[in-house]
Amino acid sequence: LNLSLASSCNVTGQWHSELGSLLWLTTVGPEVRGVYQTAVESALGAAGHNHQAKIVGVVGEGRQPTIAFSVLWIKGSCSAWVGQCFVLPGGSQVLKTLWMLRSVAETSLDNWDSTRLGEDQFIFVGDVENASGH
Amino acid sequence: LNLSLASSCNVTGQWHSELGSLLWLTTVGPEVRGVYQTAVESALGAAGHNHQAKIVGVVGEGRQPTIAFSVLWIKGSCSAWVGQCFVLPGGSQVLKTLWMLRSVAETSLDNWDSTRLGEDQFIFVGDVENASGH
Amino acid sequence: LNLSLASSCNVTGQWHSELGSLLWLTTVGPEVRGVYQTAVESALGAAGHNHQAKIVGVVGEGRQPTIAFSVLWIKGSCSAWVGQCFVLPGGSQVLKTLWMLRSVAETSLDNWDSTRLGEDQFIFVGDVENASGH
Amino acid sequence: LNLSLASSCNVTGQWHSELGSLLWLTTVGPEVRGVYQTAVESALGAAGHNHQAKIVGVVGEGRQPTIAFSVLWIKGSCSAWVGQCFVLPGGSQVLKTLWMLRSVAETSLDNWDSTRLGEDQFIFVGDVENASGH
Repeated sequence: LNLSLASSCNVTGQWHSELGSLLWLTTVGPEVRGVYQTAVESALGAAGHNHQAKIVGVVGEGRQPTIAFSVLWIKGSCSAWVGQCFVLPGGSQVLKTLWMLRSVAETSLDNWDSTRLGEDQFIFVGDVENASGH
Repeated sequence: LNLSLASSCNVTGQWHSELGSLLWLTTVGPEVRGVYQTAVESALGAAGHNHQAKIVGVVGEGRQPTIAFSVLWIKGSCSAWVGQCFVLPGGSQVLKTLWMLRSVAETSLDNWDSTRLGEDQFIFVGDVENASGH
Repeated sequence: LNLSLASSCNVTGQWHSELGSLLWLTTVGPEVRGVYQTAVESALGAAGHNHQAKIVGVVGEGRQPTIAFSVLWIKGSCSAWVGQCFVLPGGSQVLKTLWMLRSVAETSLDNWDSTRLGEDQFIFVGDVENASGH
Repeated sequence: LNLSLASSCNVTGQWHSELGSLLWLTTVGPEVRGVYQTAVESALGAAGHNHQAKIVGVVGEGRQPTIAFSVLWIKGSCSAWVGQCFVLPGGSQVLKTLWMLRSVAETSLDNWDSTRLGEDQFIFVGDVENASGH
């Protein structure tokens, strides 16, 4: 029996964002690793051939843990997300995050406009094994 | 002879922020690890007994790489920084970053005001071995 | 006949956010004025007796103008939003914004954790006259 | 005798940022107006011919008031700052702010990467009359 109702937020598994990005996360103690597959990029090719990048980060404990993770994009920009995993009344899980996207500045004089900012909400799709067809 | 002039930004080493926080970083390929010792905390005890936390993150390549890293604080909040390592005209190194600090929200209704935002600039102090007295 | 379908985003009117906050806006050239009635506050009483505050800001031209506006809360904190008015495929209007909420710091040493960050999406309810029952 | 020491932060006057931007502010009750002359722009021409734009915003009361203000740039982007006016130990005044810069997105699908983020610190130069040579 595989109840999709969660009493506690389990970060490990597959998530998708409102923009269509996909997230595979695995937690090992206070660390989180995975893969980010972005649906969008700020400049053509910035996210690379397959639009994927490795995730490294941290995750808290408890029923609704906080999470922070980083990604390095192929052309040298990088992103970080901070957020929290919530169990919604119906039992589904959501990751509410804010992110910063850091572009490469040519010099420190160009530093001022190199950081973008936004919001991402990820919905839990399932555990990784289900997601990969097992 | 140990020239402090850097032609390329080497992230590995010890850094200190304007607020007095300390950062020890080591890069291994595209990943960065280390320890963050904060001089400030948003709530008493939030940063734990010794005000230290483990760093995991990513770092780009090239002369002035971007960097993103995360930290989990003892009481369950977490932070992420994004920025870039710059070599200043005199040859000193600076890490110009923006950060988000995510507090634990009781419920998703309290999510809205759980993220703080700020700026940190870190100055390179030296490589880790010098810093630890060897 | 009053078509609710908009070909161009008209900022003047009443808006409500996903959190339940209400916004009355009137544009006069490149300026916008109005009233913000918040559904949430970061500290008890921060938004005052009636949870309302005056809005002053700026608004661009064209079909989908950008907008930025500020509010001063009764206890001395203040907020600013930046965003853009979009006409969705169905003709409804949405204001997609990011905001910062600035709390009063006792001293400049407390400045670092005094800014909060978030996202608000406002849906157009109607023009002010309809909204007020005329 | 014109003492530059301030016991209370007076927002009215001229300010300059670390990046070389200039700010002329006048407060009228809880509102602030003025002119922003930027030293930088995110895209060529974005800040217009003279790099100036009108400021509208709000300002708190007390010795070290908070402030939030907005600016509309000539090409349709806009910015908002939130911050606080501090009297430093030596009596000089500083405006510590964070800002968001909103670019025009073609469609709501491009909304996600349209907001930039940064930090500005403004130093008080003098009251407007001194600044203008009277």
